[in-house]
Order: sequence, then structure tokens, then C-alpha cells
Amino acid sequence: MRSALALGPGAEFDRIRSILGRLGERAAGVGGDCALIPAGDGQLAVSVDLSVEGTHFRTEWLSLEEIGWRAAAGALSDLAAAGAEAVGILASIGVPRGAPASAVTTLMDGVGAAAASVGGVVLGGDLAAAPTWLVDVTVIGRVEVPVTRGGARPGDGVWVSGRLGAARAALDALVRGATPDPEAREAFAKPRPRLGLGRALSRLGVTAMIDLSDGLGGDAGHLAAASACAIEIDLGLVPIGPGVVEEAARRSDPPAVYAAAGGEDYELLFTLPEAASLERVRAVATATGVPVTRIGRVGEGGGVHLRLDGREQEIHGFDHFA
Amino acid sequence: MRSALALGPGAEFDRIRSILGRLGERAAGVGGDCALIPAGDGQLAVSVDLSVEGTHFRTEWLSLEEIGWRAAAGALSDLAAAGAEAVGILASIGVPRGAPASAVTTLMDGVGAAAASVGGVVLGGDLAAAPTWLVDVTVIGRVEVPVTRGGARPGDGVWVSGRLGAARAALDALVRGATPDPEAREAFAKPRPRLGLGRALSRLGVTAMIDLSDGLGGDAGHLAAASACAIEIDLGLVPIGPGVVEEAARRSDPPAVYAAAGGEDYELLFTLPEAASLERVRAVATATGVPVTRIGRVGEGGGVHLRLDGREQEIHGFDHFA
Repeated sequence: MRSALALGPGAEFDRIRSILGRLGERAAGVGGDCALIPAGDGQLAVSVDLSVEGTHFRTEWLSLEEIGWRAAAGALSDLAAAGAEAVGILASIGVPRGAPASAVTTLMDGVGAAAASVGGVVLGGDLAAAPTWLVDVTVIGRVEVPVTRGGARPGDGVWVSGRLGAARAALDALVRGATPDPEAREAFAKPRPRLGLGRALSRLGVTAMIDLSDGLGGDAGHLAAASACAIEIDLGLVPIGPGVVEEAARRSDPPAVYAAAGGEDYELLFTLPEAASLERVRAVATATGVPVTRIGRVGEGGGVHLRLDGREQEIHGFDHFA
Repeated sequence: MRSALALGPGAEFDRIRSILGRLGERAAGVGGDCALIPAGDGQLAVSVDLSVEGTHFRTEWLSLEEIGWRAAAGALSDLAAAGAEAVGILASIGVPRGAPASAVTTLMDGVGAAAASVGGVVLGGDLAAAPTWLVDVTVIGRVEVPVTRGGARPGDGVWVSGRLGAARAALDALVRGATPDPEAREAFAKPRPRLGLGRALSRLGVTAMIDLSDGLGGDAGHLAAASACAIEIDLGLVPIGPGVVEEAARRSDPPAVYAAAGGEDYELLFTLPEAASLERVRAVATATGVPVTRIGRVGEGGGVHLRLDGREQEIHGFDHFA
């Protein structure tokens, strides 16, 4: 319950706070990326992620296989943030009446492929008739010492994996009926959950970690709240994904501001002690094939401070209930 | 995968078979009541159950708290069938746009109460805007030696807990706009998952067990398929729930036939060696406060044979995709 209440601002998180307040002692370990269950020498990390047609995806934009992959990848990304390895997933699928049986199989192909891409298997699931497609994925991982959002300390460096904003760039193009940049579309349709990187960073002594599902602005807020620290980010250092420059220009936004407000990057935001060896960080990036970039530092106080050319920027994450 | 393919007949199970065929080695342990994950001395049992407004419930019939309880109880019932004790649950909730935050909290009250009723806690969840209410509950339990559907042997006795058909009786009354029998309504709205009984039966040497979610006819079919045996049931011995006689009469069905075709009883169907001491079985029933009744025997061959007054009856379980 301690970590449960340490969420950043937003209407969705207000709802979660309200639920947790009512559940009281009936809720345990809620609010981090994963719940933890003692299991032999280590712990099982469990998380769940619900994707609904019309809220999270449209069948005009994504194939059913991509919808399945994306739903599973989003949930698996929570395991990456805990530094866990994947055990398996369960997928509940809501099927619109009249959809052919082959459609369900195609969607599950995507779910299964995403699980297999990180060494997991499909452990179970459920099917039900529903008004629209929906996919709810429960992921189960194994971890000895889980990384949390709550360990960042003033002076730590703030880092991010990959490049940000491409999923938003693809989404914005799709919304206005344009063809997205092909690399941006790939980032949107088939995000790669960073489990290998998350485990390697865990061994490297990362102090706090979260995956970027709500956008850099929103997720840095959760990390700041859980760690009771300020997160100070120089947006000029944020690596920009494909398609972002063009889409940001359409809105007259600086690309880094556009990228920091985009959800569903499924990259990792993490903090490392100042003393962390740059060579060792680079070696992890090379070994996992995922670039990592230092974008800021942990400060005293609280909240997220995003600066571009020295000026503070207001950026909010995506919120389904705003 | 072996147990995965050992499902009874039905369009829903055809779909599951098709998915599992495609997933191949990417699926593991699917098809029983629970997936199993090694965890220290024992195993964790995991299952998921999706409830969708319009498919599984209507808000005119049930309060949001009852909808939450019922969704959680249905999932927890799978743990009962494995002989597991509850660890916790995760609940994903789809929230209709415009629903007040208090509505979500009320629904989660029901989820949390069902978990607490069997000693479990809420471990996590997710919220998303959706076209209708939906609740997807993942349950996690712990078990040393799980009971499966696959251990029934010819000569075993076939037993059932509680009384059957009340949930169907309430549902049929609600569908035609009548007020259900109060006890039948309670059975429909607040089913009690039988975890205490399931664990006690596991210690007693039960050979196979399944929970009754699809109806006695359908679930006995799964047990028969997984055990590669015939399940022979004398419908005259089936204990009939409240409200069943009246509702069955409206359809000119014998009450036992009506009850055997009703879904969502969440009672346990199990098999015990012929040598099982009746005193010990009765002691378990007394200790857990749940009556158990012998209703048939396991035979050679396969399939379910439901007889009433010596004549075989055709009864199918409820199937969302039929």
C-alpha cells in the first residue's frame, strides 16, 4: 500500500488511489509495475494490462496479430521494469460477435509470438463474446531482487533506453488518415519489451526503473513520487524516434517535447548511481542491442522538471480518463 | 498441451483447441482449470476469467458490487478445483465512458470482498475505458500437489458439492422480467467459491476435480475427456437448488435435467475411489459447511452419460459461441 499511493498526478491515478484507499488491507503490493509473490529462492512478479478496441487500438490501423503482440508487449514491459525474466502469460480475449474463429487464432498468434520473443510461454487464457475486441494480458515473471520505482536518490543519473516518440508519431499520422513513417509504424505496432536490458541493468545496480507506457512526463512523475525525489530531465538529451520530427513540426512543438508527451514507447526509464561505470553501461547496451542515453539527474524535492534550452516545460502523460 | 486438447465438445472449446494447435510449444499447461508454475516447495496455480456486460451479466440485474464479487468468485472457483489455497487476485476493469469514479470503487469492493472471503488479497489490476463494463480476474493460488481433471478411474464414485441449478433459475426469472426466488438470486449474484472444500477433498485423496461453470453436462464432459473415462450420472441423485423446481416446471423439464444444464453454479464435481470412507467424506462436508452428494460412477469408455429413471438424457453446457 505504501507504493500504491505513490503515483503521479492524473485522473486515472486518482481512480486507482480511490480504489486502493477503499480496499485497505485487502490490497497488497499494488501500484508498482508488478506485484510480487514469494516463490522459493526468488519472487514471482505479476502484472496485468488491459487493451480495448477504440481506447487502445483500432482494427483499421493494426492487424489482429499486431493487436495481440502489442497487448502482450505492453504487459511484458512491466516485467522488464522490475528486472524480471518472463515465465509466461495468460490472455483473456473479448471477441466481437460474428468474428470468425480464425480471427481469434490470429490475434493469439501475436500474443504467443511476443511471449516467445522474451522466452515466455502462454500459460492460459479465456474467451468471451464482447461488444469490441479486447485483450487483457497477465504476465508472470521471476526475479531474485526486484527493481522498484522507489530507489532513486539525489545525485543519481537519469537514463532512458531506445528512442522516444515514434509510437505517438505513428498514431498521430493514423488519426488524420495519413500513412505513418514505416519505422514509426513498426514502433507503434510491434514494440519490443526490454526484458534483456532490464535484467542486465538490474545486475548493474540500477536504483529505480519504470517502463514508459504513459509517456516520459507521466512515468517520470510516478518514479519521482515513489522515490520521493525530483527527476530533472534535459529534453535536449532525449533521443528522438523515427517520424517524430515531421509530426512534431505539424504541431509546432519541439520534437523532444512532442516525444516526452507520447505514450506507449515501452522503453525503460532508470536511475544509476553517479559512480556507475560508463563503460559497463555501454557494454550492457551493446550486449542487448538497445542504446541507452543519460538524459538528466535525480534532485532533492519532488516532481518532474523537464527543461529545454534552460526553460521548464509542462508535459502531461496520456490519461484515458482525463 | 496434453490436457489442453482434452476438452469436451462445444464451439467455445473448438476455438480454444484451434488456438492451442497453432500455439504449439508456445502454450504450456493450458486447458486445465489452472496453469501451474513451480514455486519453492509447491506450485503456484494461476487462472483467468473474463466477465463482460451483456454476455455474463447485466447491470439491471446485479449491483456493481455483486458484479465484482461474481467475477472474482468465478475465477477463484478454478483454484478450488485444483485444491489450491488463494494467494491473491488481479482485476482488470473496463469502465464505460461517463461512469463515475465511485462506480469503479464499488465494483472493486465486490472483487476485494470475494478475495478476502477465501483469504486472498488484491495484488494488482488495470483500468481502461471500454464500451461496456467488463471484469477480467486473474487468480493466483498455492498448492503442493494440484488436483487435475485427469485422474478419474473406472469404479470411482462421482460426487458434487452443494445444490445445482439455482443460478440458472435466477437468470431465467430475470430474463423474463420476473423477481427470482431470493435464495436463487443469492446463488446467482454471490456464488461462494469452494476453496476450503477443495483443499479438504485434496487431502482426502480425490482423484479428479473440476468446478461447475459450464453446467454439470458440459463440465463432466471435460472431466471425462481429460480422464479418458466415462462419467455416468444418475440425475435422480443430483441435489436441486432453490427456485429450480418452479423454473423447470415452466419449461416442462424435469428439475434435475434443468439443473444439469445450468451454468455458473461454481460447485465442485469430483471423483473419489470406491474405498473412500463415507465417514471421512461426511466429516469434510461438516467441517466446511458444504454438503456433498454422490451422484454417479466413473465407467470404462468415454463421454458423459446422464440418466434419469434409467433413460439417457442429452444435456449440453452453456456455450457463448454456440
